[in-house]
Amino acid sequence: MDTREFDVVVIGGGSTGENLADVVVRGGLTAALVEAELVGGECSYWACMPSKALLRGTEALAAARAVDGARQAVTGEQDVAATLARRDTFTHGWDDASQAGWVAGAGIELLRGTGRLDGERTVVVTDTDGQGTRLTARHAVAVCTGSEAAVPPADGLREVGPWTPREATSAKEAPGRLLVVGGGYVGCEMATAWAALGSQVTLLQRGPRLLPDLEPEAGEAVAEALRAAGVDVRPGTEVTAARREGTEVVLTTAGGELRGDEVLVAVGRRPRTGDLGLDTVGLPPGEYLDVDDSLQVRGLPWAYGVGDVNNRRQLTHMGKYQARQAGAAIVARARGEQVSLADWSPFVATADRLATPSVVFTAPQVASVGLTRAAAERAGVAHRVVQYDMGGVAGASLHADGYTGTAIALVDTDREVLLGVTFVGPAVAELVHAATVAVAGEVPIARLWHAVPAYPTMSEIWLRLLEGYRDAADRSSSSSA
Amino acid sequence: MDTREFDVVVIGGGSTGENLADVVVRGGLTAALVEAELVGGECSYWACMPSKALLRGTEALAAARAVDGARQAVTGEQDVAATLARRDTFTHGWDDASQAGWVAGAGIELLRGTGRLDGERTVVVTDTDGQGTRLTARHAVAVCTGSEAAVPPADGLREVGPWTPREATSAKEAPGRLLVVGGGYVGCEMATAWAALGSQVTLLQRGPRLLPDLEPEAGEAVAEALRAAGVDVRPGTEVTAARREGTEVVLTTAGGELRGDEVLVAVGRRPRTGDLGLDTVGLPPGEYLDVDDSLQVRGLPWAYGVGDVNNRRQLTHMGKYQARQAGAAIVARARGEQVSLADWSPFVATADRLATPSVVFTAPQVASVGLTRAAAERAGVAHRVVQYDMGGVAGASLHADGYTGTAIALVDTDREVLLGVTFVGPAVAELVHAATVAVAGEVPIARLWHAVPAYPTMSEIWLRLLEGYRDAADRSSSSSA
Repeated sequence: MDTREFDVVVIGGGSTGENLADVVVRGGLTAALVEAELVGGECSYWACMPSKALLRGTEALAAARAVDGARQAVTGEQDVAATLARRDTFTHGWDDASQAGWVAGAGIELLRGTGRLDGERTVVVTDTDGQGTRLTARHAVAVCTGSEAAVPPADGLREVGPWTPREATSAKEAPGRLLVVGGGYVGCEMATAWAALGSQVTLLQRGPRLLPDLEPEAGEAVAEALRAAGVDVRPGTEVTAARREGTEVVLTTAGGELRGDEVLVAVGRRPRTGDLGLDTVGLPPGEYLDVDDSLQVRGLPWAYGVGDVNNRRQLTHMGKYQARQAGAAIVARARGEQVSLADWSPFVATADRLATPSVVFTAPQVASVGLTRAAAERAGVAHRVVQYDMGGVAGASLHADGYTGTAIALVDTDREVLLGVTFVGPAVAELVHAATVAVAGEVPIARLWHAVPAYPTMSEIWLRLLEGYRDAADRSSSSSA
Repeated sequence: MDTREFDVVVIGGGSTGENLADVVVRGGLTAALVEAELVGGECSYWACMPSKALLRGTEALAAARAVDGARQAVTGEQDVAATLARRDTFTHGWDDASQAGWVAGAGIELLRGTGRLDGERTVVVTDTDGQGTRLTARHAVAVCTGSEAAVPPADGLREVGPWTPREATSAKEAPGRLLVVGGGYVGCEMATAWAALGSQVTLLQRGPRLLPDLEPEAGEAVAEALRAAGVDVRPGTEVTAARREGTEVVLTTAGGELRGDEVLVAVGRRPRTGDLGLDTVGLPPGEYLDVDDSLQVRGLPWAYGVGDVNNRRQLTHMGKYQARQAGAAIVARARGEQVSLADWSPFVATADRLATPSVVFTAPQVASVGLTRAAAERAGVAHRVVQYDMGGVAGASLHADGYTGTAIALVDTDREVLLGVTFVGPAVAELVHAATVAVAGEVPIARLWHAVPAYPTMSEIWLRLLEGYRDAADRSSSSSA
């Protein structure tokens, strides 16, 4: 078996692994990037990009229809074939040549094959011909293998060949009847997308509400909008069994049987660590990696777990963020430099805990960052909640007739900084970054009054939230006086 | 003549005056608000709101047409009558009953009539019947009379009855041929609006480029887009004379005569201080008021000049910001409290100088905050410029096929904070508030790396700008090493 040595070996060439390799090479180290499928990973080919491409046309048409005067020009229907073809341009026909070219240009050595740990600082790469190469890492092995769709243990569900998010984002046509199991962001986005592209969609959620990790107003607004779009939304519904009858899929629930042409299972993720050789370094296969804030695996100073595989925040942008922070830590440690694990140092992923943004590209969109009310309660942080109807903002009423939406902000009442903000409404995706800067920057409320929103943009919601906080504080001080 | 006494007398009931009165009443003072025209002022009736309402339908249709798949549904034309009717809903048919109701509900006394100073802390209000009321202000008189359109001294121009921005935003139909004099934001927005609503538009700009106060990329992109929309854009063109021939307007320029059905003059503003009794308090009539950072008139401790009338920043949102700061200063001084004039204190309008956002709602939009390159050069601040093609951001390419745009950031290289950011491109209006928070919050670049943009939004431009700054810094340190 060939043997080669690098400073850093990265297993997994998704967006996280690519970024980590790039950072360490920029830091003067050598890096091997091991990828068994497509360089670029889930995000580029089977998640963020194709799902948003499927949704964008629907969003743009809804926005035009919501403005009297423009509405009259939208007399036709969305061209579904063109939308699917546009989606394919973003996935480059599921060909990773351009990404592989970027990797080479960045000075990273790409090794195609399956990477498995084989003891300390050692990775064996097996290519499709079964040829193996043994890689030794002078400084670090970064595991960036990500996650894959979990399939719940309902009787027969795996056997009916359900769609995972991969098939849901890459399908070549809209199924006639689509059953969606799971009301998280994938289920909600795909229900929104395929209902608009012609499918009759039924959305099953085990719990009482959609988007359970977000503020309750989010799931309520999305459920209402999905129903208005003709989706049969069924909260509190668990699938107990599944079978095929000819081309039909039949799901059994406590409320009866449901029939469809395809079923998408989007009930969560599980780590891609089952076939990774974790046992050769004393870790349990099939589990998430337990890491510290520099993404270093606890107990294995040469190993890092970065991205979905550590289950801190399973979002593309947070995987890339972790890659930057872990990469900086690897470079500094390779140089023998001190690596601060203090919050917000250049070597730690503090935002995972305190300032993670996410956008759900449903209609309405849900864009949030930092803590929800429930998370703040759990954390026991003294805070005040301010909420405002976004339809009352001039910029929102200009954007769409009858605009409805909600903004929710949590203020830390001891430190007078924002803990979290959630926006629910059309076209709020770009509003959240201002909140992310405020939360991650720990900008004091007193200073935020000097951050004036331009009139008449939707960002004027900021002024309403600040006023709401001021008024609540005034009431509180006068009632205690 | 009736005589009445208030803690604060506010002359001018536009958005600035309304807000200032509200702040002082919340602070426990009494306030009179004097308004001769419509409560709410220019912004509500003849500027921000109607102009954006005229532009929004065009923007929404362009956005839908830019997405293959959605484009095919836009088979009709914008309904111009419906767009104009929608505009009228935002101006409430130019009736201020709802705003007057808000004033009353806020505990502010509205006095309809023309307010004129009559010596120290005294204002005489003359109503339309010629009845006068003498108001005495215990603590402060706030002059919030704003500005009005300036008409350049070209021979005959005033006599042809040109449109000011008021007529351009309130017109009941699209003129056949519209001549626009002035390539600032009003001229560019109105050229964009009326060209899309059916007018044949010619835009004349005296200087070499449009939007001269913004980064040059802005005016260049807007000029190119206006030309593509059929507008005859003529930089370097000065109007020397004007006349009417029947219903036609004829403008004389060095390059020949231009004919149109209407001419909009949008070449700047002048203060509404000519008939304000400034001479009774020793100030020159017709001039802008000279104020300090708490908006107090220099030399007259009882007088404040707030909003357009002080010529610090002639923007609705900055007038309202100044109103909040000046109102807080008036309340504090009335209580005998100390008023800090330090930057970013609750009593000063520091953002006027360092963090003023503006959005030009042209196609493409221009959204900016803080210093431009030219302003940073003038100020002599050590800085580095980072620029990025926004079409390279995944969120932008999802938003529109062939998205083109530019982002420009200026970093203070001594303090490592942002000095200013400009975005040029479709749908950038909501991107700027994140920059405003970063600039006003003086968030260090090192911390901005923890403010992760959600993928795939257009806000990912932030990552590209940070990378650009890092790479430039790396090159700079390696070249000096």
